[in-house]
Amino acid sequence: MAELMKGVVKEKPEPGAVYREDLPVPRVRDNEILVRVKATAICGTDLHIYPWTEWAQARLKLPMVFGHEFAGEVVALGSMVKNFRIGDRVAGETHIPCNNCYQCQTGNQHICEEMKIIGVHTPGSFAEYISIPVDCAWKLDDNISYEIGAMLEPMGVAVHGVLSGEIGGKTVAIFGCGPIGLMGVGVAAACGASKIFAVDLVEDKLTLAMQMGAHVVLNSGWDDVVDAIREATHGQGVDVVVDFTGSPKAIQDGFKVIRKGGRYSLVGLPNKPVSLDLSEYIIYKEVTVIGVTGRLMYKTWWQCTDLLKSGKIDITPVIGGTYPLQDYKAAFEALMNGAPGKMILIP
Amino acid sequence: MAELMKGVVKEKPEPGAVYREDLPVPRVRDNEILVRVKATAICGTDLHIYPWTEWAQARLKLPMVFGHEFAGEVVALGSMVKNFRIGDRVAGETHIPCNNCYQCQTGNQHICEEMKIIGVHTPGSFAEYISIPVDCAWKLDDNISYEIGAMLEPMGVAVHGVLSGEIGGKTVAIFGCGPIGLMGVGVAAACGASKIFAVDLVEDKLTLAMQMGAHVVLNSGWDDVVDAIREATHGQGVDVVVDFTGSPKAIQDGFKVIRKGGRYSLVGLPNKPVSLDLSEYIIYKEVTVIGVTGRLMYKTWWQCTDLLKSGKIDITPVIGGTYPLQDYKAAFEALMNGAPGKMILIP
Amino acid sequence: MAELMKGVVKEKPEPGAVYREDLPVPRVRDNEILVRVKATAICGTDLHIYPWTEWAQARLKLPMVFGHEFAGEVVALGSMVKNFRIGDRVAGETHIPCNNCYQCQTGNQHICEEMKIIGVHTPGSFAEYISIPVDCAWKLDDNISYEIGAMLEPMGVAVHGVLSGEIGGKTVAIFGCGPIGLMGVGVAAACGASKIFAVDLVEDKLTLAMQMGAHVVLNSGWDDVVDAIREATHGQGVDVVVDFTGSPKAIQDGFKVIRKGGRYSLVGLPNKPVSLDLSEYIIYKEVTVIGVTGRLMYKTWWQCTDLLKSGKIDITPVIGGTYPLQDYKAAFEALMNGAPGKMILIP
Amino acid sequence: MAELMKGVVKEKPEPGAVYREDLPVPRVRDNEILVRVKATAICGTDLHIYPWTEWAQARLKLPMVFGHEFAGEVVALGSMVKNFRIGDRVAGETHIPCNNCYQCQTGNQHICEEMKIIGVHTPGSFAEYISIPVDCAWKLDDNISYEIGAMLEPMGVAVHGVLSGEIGGKTVAIFGCGPIGLMGVGVAAACGASKIFAVDLVEDKLTLAMQMGAHVVLNSGWDDVVDAIREATHGQGVDVVVDFTGSPKAIQDGFKVIRKGGRYSLVGLPNKPVSLDLSEYIIYKEVTVIGVTGRLMYKTWWQCTDLLKSGKIDITPVIGGTYPLQDYKAAFEALMNGAPGKMILIP
Repeated sequence: MAELMKGVVKEKPEPGAVYREDLPVPRVRDNEILVRVKATAICGTDLHIYPWTEWAQARLKLPMVFGHEFAGEVVALGSMVKNFRIGDRVAGETHIPCNNCYQCQTGNQHICEEMKIIGVHTPGSFAEYISIPVDCAWKLDDNISYEIGAMLEPMGVAVHGVLSGEIGGKTVAIFGCGPIGLMGVGVAAACGASKIFAVDLVEDKLTLAMQMGAHVVLNSGWDDVVDAIREATHGQGVDVVVDFTGSPKAIQDGFKVIRKGGRYSLVGLPNKPVSLDLSEYIIYKEVTVIGVTGRLMYKTWWQCTDLLKSGKIDITPVIGGTYPLQDYKAAFEALMNGAPGKMILIP
Repeated sequence: MAELMKGVVKEKPEPGAVYREDLPVPRVRDNEILVRVKATAICGTDLHIYPWTEWAQARLKLPMVFGHEFAGEVVALGSMVKNFRIGDRVAGETHIPCNNCYQCQTGNQHICEEMKIIGVHTPGSFAEYISIPVDCAWKLDDNISYEIGAMLEPMGVAVHGVLSGEIGGKTVAIFGCGPIGLMGVGVAAACGASKIFAVDLVEDKLTLAMQMGAHVVLNSGWDDVVDAIREATHGQGVDVVVDFTGSPKAIQDGFKVIRKGGRYSLVGLPNKPVSLDLSEYIIYKEVTVIGVTGRLMYKTWWQCTDLLKSGKIDITPVIGGTYPLQDYKAAFEALMNGAPGKMILIP
Repeated sequence: MAELMKGVVKEKPEPGAVYREDLPVPRVRDNEILVRVKATAICGTDLHIYPWTEWAQARLKLPMVFGHEFAGEVVALGSMVKNFRIGDRVAGETHIPCNNCYQCQTGNQHICEEMKIIGVHTPGSFAEYISIPVDCAWKLDDNISYEIGAMLEPMGVAVHGVLSGEIGGKTVAIFGCGPIGLMGVGVAAACGASKIFAVDLVEDKLTLAMQMGAHVVLNSGWDDVVDAIREATHGQGVDVVVDFTGSPKAIQDGFKVIRKGGRYSLVGLPNKPVSLDLSEYIIYKEVTVIGVTGRLMYKTWWQCTDLLKSGKIDITPVIGGTYPLQDYKAAFEALMNGAPGKMILIP
Repeated sequence: MAELMKGVVKEKPEPGAVYREDLPVPRVRDNEILVRVKATAICGTDLHIYPWTEWAQARLKLPMVFGHEFAGEVVALGSMVKNFRIGDRVAGETHIPCNNCYQCQTGNQHICEEMKIIGVHTPGSFAEYISIPVDCAWKLDDNISYEIGAMLEPMGVAVHGVLSGEIGGKTVAIFGCGPIGLMGVGVAAACGASKIFAVDLVEDKLTLAMQMGAHVVLNSGWDDVVDAIREATHGQGVDVVVDFTGSPKAIQDGFKVIRKGGRYSLVGLPNKPVSLDLSEYIIYKEVTVIGVTGRLMYKTWWQCTDLLKSGKIDITPVIGGTYPLQDYKAAFEALMNGAPGKMILIP
């Protein structure tokens, strides 16, 4: 294996990033595996890092290779690694748990109290090689391509969110048709949702939502989302709402269209406090609100794999574009211009 | 409305039944509605009553019109009835709850401690008219035909059984492909089961199971069911087993193929005790076994309606035959000869 | 039975109420029972009606006997009533369900979509007699006094809130030590909460909270509630928060002290929107927020009865005072001056 | 640290065991910790090993130090161990998970598909020192003594079994008052069970059950357990049954006294198949049967610790005797003669 590699680095505290060909290949620690990245995808988090938002400024120490959604082939093993072999195909979990806190000890590593994040706290996947803790490696099924493998991590968020309660035979409103929301539509459709409303501001995303299985799409730019959903549900509202936007308006609309006794899963992250009429939205209605972050390690990964292998869901339409890694700028710009779908980079 | 009606009566304590044209139309009590039966289906229970098994001898007082799966049109209302009107299309719930016991008071009318059964304790639906307590009337959606409406009650058993735990992305083995088992296959497929094994002794039923969405069918007459399922699940076994047979052998096989931590729903009624290795089957595996009888009143009815209306499931293939009511003998004989599917009688 | 009765009436749209001795005894409809009120308690709702707040102005049609927490003896039965007899001891459920909507059909009558409220929409219990739908009558156990019986309805709110998730061996913070909060403390203590923090502004209420089983009491007037709870839980926070205040500050504090993966039951009703940092409070923490209103009809009533009969909980300390009905003014004034506990009126 | 240690060894394939003073202190592997055993308790499993039953013959390779319930002090650390220090007080989890199978990956290490057992597959705790995988070490709270610490593992079984469903305000029947059953009574009492029936054949054990919080004790040798529980529950039966016996008769009795819709947790291991009337016991009643083995790693350990620290439960009465390790024979003989409670050995 070479000693130098190519990769995209955030070098300076300013917008943009740099493509370098002289990065050192990461050293593999005792409990790590070195992965030759075959495909890596751009996450919403990366859209904070690239333009260098406050969120990013508060978290990253530069220089840093970023990116954290990826799949690839194992090329080296740390001295303590069992259960993996060179040549294994793997996808990567972003969250590095401490394995020592209350959450880690009770099956909730994904909300570890001392969480580290790949591509934020440790070097990321926008490169030819990445070294990850063995706890973050998931063996990729032979029937799943590297491109789809790079999307398992965000698909996991969709699965964890949509399946955080009953969905079979339920009506559901999904707010936000970015890549995760689109996969959420697909999961709901695969798992028996009887009527799926998908909401977004971008027509192209709504077109994809139809393709993923939505029955009704609503453009919050001009449709009256609340009226439309209420009317289509005989005034009762939907059984389930899943928010992938983090937008205060969308979240409030979700509470207006949820049925009494309904389940509301919050996935999208608002960047400021949201004002909620708790009495009307939650208490009188006895709504259950569920916070959803990341994915269960590794129940959700099993679910993703089983759904994909069974053919119940096909997430290929969610791929918005595939670019050579050195063309990362084009991919970022497409996203920042509102292009739908997930962008895949091939190192 | 006429004062006399046609119907099928169990008159004497012996095999068979009689078609009469001079039965009195039932009187409607204060809290009842009179229904003009448009379609009625033959249940497994009726296959005890017709040949007059011990089960039937212990329960029925003769003469009795039997049958209890039906749909029709409301033609008269008792004096205390609200919420229904003449002309409403309805399907019938078989279980008459007391509305006074602990179960009825806690949302479980379907396991009422003082349950009465239509067509067993009170006159049934193999006739032109039936009068039922308003508590047993379900408004039939306009998009659902009377034939399918007559199958909502048994479909409810399938829904209640299959959805008594998680199913999306799960592997499932369904034992028994009678009408309820077949609908169970359909429900599992509609709600995202990633791999469905269907098991029966009759090839025609397995063919229907494939049509309803099974991925693998196994004939317990010659296939090694346990080996086949274990092998297809990498030795781990399936996440979910639902037994619709009541057969000791099938139930034991189910425990042999269920995964550790799996969910086992028992629906089929064994007619004698079953010997179970509780240590190996349940305790070491931490299996959860769930007894399932009837349907939730009326959560399950809502689920059936929503699944049918959404087009997620089509139960038409489960119809084994449609007969004029006076040809009831042909329908019963077909069933007793192993014909697959649900037989519908049209009064 | 007399034709006239004594009672407290809201006659005019202004603060206060009138004690009358010439009220007509209510007429009993077909599906109602007439109850001789033996004890009736003052609810927070009554503290809107008495001073005539906007909430009350928007809901009541005057004149109206108000009050809705009560117990008494059955003295007359409507023509359609089964399952009750004259002489039965009963307590009253405040919520009158329609029995026809989705919620009523799925075991959630307490969040009926067409709910009516006794003492708000129909004549109440601050009188010698009240006639209630048989659906709202609960047979009072022989071992429970009428005074305690009049508190079952609010105790039900506490039970429904505290037991809306796991509590055994859990740490819990209870915000608000009004009568329902105090009973909530008692329920948590009875059901195995390992450490109970109780928070209020009034010292007398905190004293009662200790008596009901709180391990730590905090006065939000001068204690730093968030720091104190965090420190006492090693920085992790509590497993469970139940809010009985409806105060924005208390609700926000609750989110600051809840553990990742914790359960937050909202019972108290905020009278305006509350600003919440959903990302930090709910999503990153994967908190589950549960809206709680009223009580399950009638699972919660069974739970209350079983807990009281077993001696696991004694709610007698929650009684703040017992007054003859004609002294209602003294009882209301005590409450408005911040007196702790539940006031009982004896007609 | 010495190079030789004292301990109890099963040397030959015959009843009994040998006390040796010349055993090698175990070598500490990279991911292990060496514990100076301060207290170790005798499990039911040891009562198979000591007399050398078929169960033991099929599993152990001799010679073997056995025993697996223990607490002690960390005296050496493997090279890869983080999170523990020399001097830490710890208790030991018996189950060694593979950390690689489906169960280990989904929060269920306690039902690992490749489970190893301390004291069966690896050297045990009836000795001065034991070396255990760091995955099996639980930090013992300062407020919990080593004797009680040695009982955390079996207490965990009781907690896992009793709290595998709702218990607050529920009636419960506990079959079997060995040490785990007695702790189960204590957990049910601490967590709000409204009426606890305890069943055993040995009077001394029933006396302890009363001390642990049982409301009614029944001797299955002469009491009619089924009639007594049914009568005391107004014919309805109990909400919850937990079986700690593994006895077919007790298990069947449990099904006869469980309420419709009840929860039945099976903990005790039958040594042969049990004949069950599934239709009457489980299906018509819609009983949920839950297999329970071991304890959750480590949710249950947290629960045990919190319950003990809070003072909600005191398991001291369950200690049947404390012996120096060299007097192990007396402890085993007491147990085989039916002595109640848990025997503690002090190396």
